[in-house]
Amino acid sequence: VPSRAEIIEQYKAVRYATEGICASLEVEDFVVQPHEDVSPPRWHLGHLAWFFENFVLKRFISGYEPVHPHYSFLFNSYYNLVGDRTVRATRGHHTRPTVHQVMQYRAEVDARITRLIESCDDTTLLHLSPILETGLHHEQQHQELLLADIKAILHQPPLFPAYVDGSRLQPGQGSRHEGWTRLEGGNIEIGHAGDGFAFDNESPRHTQLLRPFKLANDLISNAEYLAFTEDGGYRRPELWLSDGWDVAAARRWESPLYWHTRAGARFTHTLYGLRELMPEEPVCHVSYYEADAFARWAGKRLPTEFEWEHAAVSTGAMDHPGTLAEDWNYQPRRGRDLNARISRMIGEVWEWTSSAYAPYPGYRAPEGAIGEYNGKFMVNQMVLRGGSVATPAQHIRATYRNFWHPDKRWQFTGIRLAEDA
Amino acid sequence: VPSRAEIIEQYKAVRYATEGICASLEVEDFVVQPHEDVSPPRWHLGHLAWFFENFVLKRFISGYEPVHPHYSFLFNSYYNLVGDRTVRATRGHHTRPTVHQVMQYRAEVDARITRLIESCDDTTLLHLSPILETGLHHEQQHQELLLADIKAILHQPPLFPAYVDGSRLQPGQGSRHEGWTRLEGGNIEIGHAGDGFAFDNESPRHTQLLRPFKLANDLISNAEYLAFTEDGGYRRPELWLSDGWDVAAARRWESPLYWHTRAGARFTHTLYGLRELMPEEPVCHVSYYEADAFARWAGKRLPTEFEWEHAAVSTGAMDHPGTLAEDWNYQPRRGRDLNARISRMIGEVWEWTSSAYAPYPGYRAPEGAIGEYNGKFMVNQMVLRGGSVATPAQHIRATYRNFWHPDKRWQFTGIRLAEDA
Amino acid sequence: VPSRAEIIEQYKAVRYATEGICASLEVEDFVVQPHEDVSPPRWHLGHLAWFFENFVLKRFISGYEPVHPHYSFLFNSYYNLVGDRTVRATRGHHTRPTVHQVMQYRAEVDARITRLIESCDDTTLLHLSPILETGLHHEQQHQELLLADIKAILHQPPLFPAYVDGSRLQPGQGSRHEGWTRLEGGNIEIGHAGDGFAFDNESPRHTQLLRPFKLANDLISNAEYLAFTEDGGYRRPELWLSDGWDVAAARRWESPLYWHTRAGARFTHTLYGLRELMPEEPVCHVSYYEADAFARWAGKRLPTEFEWEHAAVSTGAMDHPGTLAEDWNYQPRRGRDLNARISRMIGEVWEWTSSAYAPYPGYRAPEGAIGEYNGKFMVNQMVLRGGSVATPAQHIRATYRNFWHPDKRWQFTGIRLAEDA
Amino acid sequence: VPSRAEIIEQYKAVRYATEGICASLEVEDFVVQPHEDVSPPRWHLGHLAWFFENFVLKRFISGYEPVHPHYSFLFNSYYNLVGDRTVRATRGHHTRPTVHQVMQYRAEVDARITRLIESCDDTTLLHLSPILETGLHHEQQHQELLLADIKAILHQPPLFPAYVDGSRLQPGQGSRHEGWTRLEGGNIEIGHAGDGFAFDNESPRHTQLLRPFKLANDLISNAEYLAFTEDGGYRRPELWLSDGWDVAAARRWESPLYWHTRAGARFTHTLYGLRELMPEEPVCHVSYYEADAFARWAGKRLPTEFEWEHAAVSTGAMDHPGTLAEDWNYQPRRGRDLNARISRMIGEVWEWTSSAYAPYPGYRAPEGAIGEYNGKFMVNQMVLRGGSVATPAQHIRATYRNFWHPDKRWQFTGIRLAEDA
Repeated sequence: VPSRAEIIEQYKAVRYATEGICASLEVEDFVVQPHEDVSPPRWHLGHLAWFFENFVLKRFISGYEPVHPHYSFLFNSYYNLVGDRTVRATRGHHTRPTVHQVMQYRAEVDARITRLIESCDDTTLLHLSPILETGLHHEQQHQELLLADIKAILHQPPLFPAYVDGSRLQPGQGSRHEGWTRLEGGNIEIGHAGDGFAFDNESPRHTQLLRPFKLANDLISNAEYLAFTEDGGYRRPELWLSDGWDVAAARRWESPLYWHTRAGARFTHTLYGLRELMPEEPVCHVSYYEADAFARWAGKRLPTEFEWEHAAVSTGAMDHPGTLAEDWNYQPRRGRDLNARISRMIGEVWEWTSSAYAPYPGYRAPEGAIGEYNGKFMVNQMVLRGGSVATPAQHIRATYRNFWHPDKRWQFTGIRLAEDA
Repeated sequence: VPSRAEIIEQYKAVRYATEGICASLEVEDFVVQPHEDVSPPRWHLGHLAWFFENFVLKRFISGYEPVHPHYSFLFNSYYNLVGDRTVRATRGHHTRPTVHQVMQYRAEVDARITRLIESCDDTTLLHLSPILETGLHHEQQHQELLLADIKAILHQPPLFPAYVDGSRLQPGQGSRHEGWTRLEGGNIEIGHAGDGFAFDNESPRHTQLLRPFKLANDLISNAEYLAFTEDGGYRRPELWLSDGWDVAAARRWESPLYWHTRAGARFTHTLYGLRELMPEEPVCHVSYYEADAFARWAGKRLPTEFEWEHAAVSTGAMDHPGTLAEDWNYQPRRGRDLNARISRMIGEVWEWTSSAYAPYPGYRAPEGAIGEYNGKFMVNQMVLRGGSVATPAQHIRATYRNFWHPDKRWQFTGIRLAEDA
Repeated sequence: VPSRAEIIEQYKAVRYATEGICASLEVEDFVVQPHEDVSPPRWHLGHLAWFFENFVLKRFISGYEPVHPHYSFLFNSYYNLVGDRTVRATRGHHTRPTVHQVMQYRAEVDARITRLIESCDDTTLLHLSPILETGLHHEQQHQELLLADIKAILHQPPLFPAYVDGSRLQPGQGSRHEGWTRLEGGNIEIGHAGDGFAFDNESPRHTQLLRPFKLANDLISNAEYLAFTEDGGYRRPELWLSDGWDVAAARRWESPLYWHTRAGARFTHTLYGLRELMPEEPVCHVSYYEADAFARWAGKRLPTEFEWEHAAVSTGAMDHPGTLAEDWNYQPRRGRDLNARISRMIGEVWEWTSSAYAPYPGYRAPEGAIGEYNGKFMVNQMVLRGGSVATPAQHIRATYRNFWHPDKRWQFTGIRLAEDA
Repeated sequence: VPSRAEIIEQYKAVRYATEGICASLEVEDFVVQPHEDVSPPRWHLGHLAWFFENFVLKRFISGYEPVHPHYSFLFNSYYNLVGDRTVRATRGHHTRPTVHQVMQYRAEVDARITRLIESCDDTTLLHLSPILETGLHHEQQHQELLLADIKAILHQPPLFPAYVDGSRLQPGQGSRHEGWTRLEGGNIEIGHAGDGFAFDNESPRHTQLLRPFKLANDLISNAEYLAFTEDGGYRRPELWLSDGWDVAAARRWESPLYWHTRAGARFTHTLYGLRELMPEEPVCHVSYYEADAFARWAGKRLPTEFEWEHAAVSTGAMDHPGTLAEDWNYQPRRGRDLNARISRMIGEVWEWTSSAYAPYPGYRAPEGAIGEYNGKFMVNQMVLRGGSVATPAQHIRATYRNFWHPDKRWQFTGIRLAEDA
């Protein structure tokens, strides 16, 4: 059991990391919402403070006075009445509270949380701790969202501003890890086990029957994906899911998000500004539809989330991670750990699986508002696994289930193939 | 092996059934498309003739001359280039070929098919027969679609015209089948076995590990669903999937499709015209989102498609069907077969399952255009099981997988609950 | 004063002309609505019967029983509550009453109107006659709309069906009437004078001060318009009104409506089927935006409606009409009346003027529903003058003001230029 | 002829006024675009600098090097290729150049302009001066737009932040000016005369024939408008233009923009924050559709722009202005100048006229890009006259023609009635 000082230290570490992510932004960057999936950083920051205020301070301090009477309305993503979508789509229309005021809000919440942890009785601490932990994991999720949203925001001006100076990019080394690893399957235990933190959607642990399969040793590279596009990948309906073909046609997709062609050469928008497309880096910013079409073109398929988890657990993928947020390197890179049986299942890019996001057998959403957290998204979304360059190391697990609608591609998402053995 | 005469007889029986469904329509009813999901009956009829012309006549007659040079373009649902959705949305803008010309097209295709079966050599017959069989099952699928689309079309004029005279409605008798049936689960074989026809998506047969569960003995009734609506079911976001809540708000759903309130009384649009809502009849025309919200409100859940199939197979559901198309009774009805362990899993209404539509392990789409048939829809859709009043008896099986996007509700779709044992 | 028999005869002549326009349609053609501007012929026919039922029968027969209780709702274009636009956009979703029933409705209304005229007292006849006359002019307006809507409907199927057999087209003869006619302007009386019928928007007659100007002796031809398109007319924003440029870009206009290019040759969809573009025929189916851009490209301008009317009156344009509906020639044609000072101001194509549709000084909308008829459209629309191949000769006058939104082009609309003298 | 020093002084005065308007904004307020009509203040500021750089510096300095290579693209409102509307709609997605950088851009342009004026030869000065003058009037137009856009931006957060502290509001005094002033009309000269600056659309001066009419002595007040709303004004289609009714229904209008009801009391969003609705203040933020419906309800009409101008000129309205920008009072107010024959034609609110925005007889757009300035908007818009609280006094004239689409209401727009004499 961690001491109160340790709890506070951990709390502060996660909270400061969020502010660190925003440290190099201009005030203007905090405000805008270039498309509906993006939230302005200003909103993220306020929402994260609200989470602790609403689920911790308000619950555990009797007669609690909120920091500001309107912030609960403004920063509550759960506010779910008729106007919900509108509310979401207008986050980029709000200029108040200002960034400075939001930062003050965060500081005030932090001070109150610290005082509460220091001064509450032991029983309260016992009840409060798991909620605090959930809040910190929630904050880490938003850290990853923040990086993806900042990337989208800096993509708007034709000036291609850099989030981090390009000289600080460490491009990676080493060749790709060719080949496939065979796994035998069988009755496999899936889902979270043990004492550590996990989200509700990783439980209950249960058995899945897997057939033998093979998993690619490495992620699909830009060069491989380019071969698909040059083979007419975006013009051949027989390669695509029907819904995917409609989306690709309506949005005029011809390549992954952020690819640009200038004078015949390929570039990609990165957090280091516009940069030549590196053939050996993992392809990033593809939708599920594109990942699935690529797999069909390649004569393979995407893994199920159970195959992925089984491979990750049984090959010790957590011990050989690729790039994660702590590396402060915000672009997926080439490189290979020679000791890994399968390379870079953890880090670099989230890997689309062929599994629709659904409850595990026996799943029950926890009671109350935190409980609705994951369960209510269990339709129309596909599971992704493994984390990305934007994921904090503490936050990722072999059992972690990320999920997005199949048309989304502004997150750090890529491709690993599988096939039947 | 059926004789050539038997093949022809079976072909004609299915084809005539399609025309029989349209026999009571006015010419005007054949043409319109009140919303994008609906296809005009005129289009269905032409498309079904095209299917046999394109996949049978064109393949097995060398130097084949099409009946009309443009029909292939007009009636090809697979034509999948950029404008696809537009093409689909404009089916109701076309008035030519006329209904009469389409009927002539059907007759000509039928004559050519008959001649081909009568005159081809045995090897050709061997290759042709499975495609012909697929074509007839495809035609039966469209027979069900036709009834749902006709219902939508007749819902447009405020006159509420009847497809069939109300005096011919046989409302059903008997009380509901209360209670639950427990099933033990285990390693269960799922998917099509044996020699009969099945679609590609029912294979390969494979093992699923099921935990013990209980399945409701009967379908949810209008009365039960009404209790949900009157308990604020459509105004309580905590009961809904997030995507479902957005859809329900945007479309202002307050009840199943086709419910009307007049002077305080509840009515529902049926193929027999506007009719008072019968409390004991199964609720019909609900989306997956509504089925899921209802289940959450009831403290239960929807079954997975594997649970459903296991229950249907192990209780002999096929031997105790509810209303199917051959009953010529186009409204789900009350009534109970006292010999059935679980009532009416087959017929009455399609039952939403909690399973996303996905390939079975080892699934491979067949080569060629027929092959893309089912596989390309395997995203964003939910599986339904059991058939409805609009399903031909020949066409339904315990392993049959129907699928729709979770927001669709113009098909004959209803609810059966499950829970963990 | 016409006799009762003459009134009935005139009534029947106009009514039968409407049915004559529809005589060659298939039932299917009566039902569809390919875009929101179009109304299905079925709706036109019902609406025109409703007009006489509602404004004549219902007013002048005490205790009047309507032919059908719902038709007033179904065929009332004036029904103007919140859902109006939706109602309009769904006219093509309704299949009942059927075409046959609508024809019966018309016949019943005609019989009742005839009986009423024959049997009412003289005072009633006196009050009834002007409304009847308005109704017949209203019917003639819809005759023109019907032809434009039928053209749009027959444009949908890729089969390019003909409304009238191409062999019946009389293409016209003679060369164009080159040059300009100068008019001196001054204080000119504008608007309807005398006893004949005119719509409310042609009054009050009043004085407009006109400066000297010149009007082109002939309409712009396809060849002249083609020169504009080939000079980059659709790609040069400096030629366009700002709103027009936005519309043209959004709808991807590159030519007038109904132009097609096949194997390098230009064709145009006509009521005689697809036909090669004739260079000497007047350009047709252009929007105001296109007419205005063409004029700017040509270094000229469009006339004001006052200039147009002054020229038409002072040169006796009504005595030298071009093609009108009674010619049964549904395609604007070349040809020149050598006796006309300015050619074909009446007939062929409606001519866009630069005048926004606005009330004449002192205009007051008549009381009651017929009164709202024209006044409520007096914003955002531009005045057109002169009639077209689809306009009945009885219906057109030198003072007649037609009006459409500047983006519309499915009517028979063309261009005549003017310039300052 | 002003001296170079005077030209510079005048230039600086206008430019500084723009920055003064933005002085109290937060950085966040400069960036957002709550709806498509609004431009972010950041964009206004950059665009205004670009205007002088593009039309003055670039033209009159040979070999001119732009301040930044991309700014011409970013701040050019005239950039009119296909994507125009999109480009406009995404102004609120751009965060770079930052507000600080835009301010530096302005300062650099100002320095260069100053140097150019000081150092160029006399011929250059002669050519440059009228463009500079146009640029300053263009800047003053944007000053008014800025205030309307800032008001829209501060309306987004539910916090209702104030642009100016409410204590600085000077609410006005005095009673309304009841009654009507009769004008006799006749052949009236309309349009700009004399040497002062005027926009191209105010010319050529020409004669309009006006009939006798009466103009209301004062603007419509909130109390009068409230009577209209309480008499069902927004629910009675017979009061509305057809297009207006559709817009009002689709946008669910029930009052002027910015009205709020809280606990039964009426409030309005102002630049001083949320404030109780003052019955005697002029109604503001109404569309043309609302102004027209109000007039019809009142049994009157709106004046034509010619009537308005004639009344303003002949009664000396310019000598008795109401509130203008120099009053630094950003809310229309009650109050009456006892010496004015008609009150407050200048200032307070722009007054909708019934005149569609069209060229005056003989109008020719000037050559080149500045020339396209006004002419290309001459369709679909209505003329407004008289200026508002946001209009600089130097900028308004009795002949000044403002224009907006009839559905716009985020500008300071109000109502004055007229009637036939």
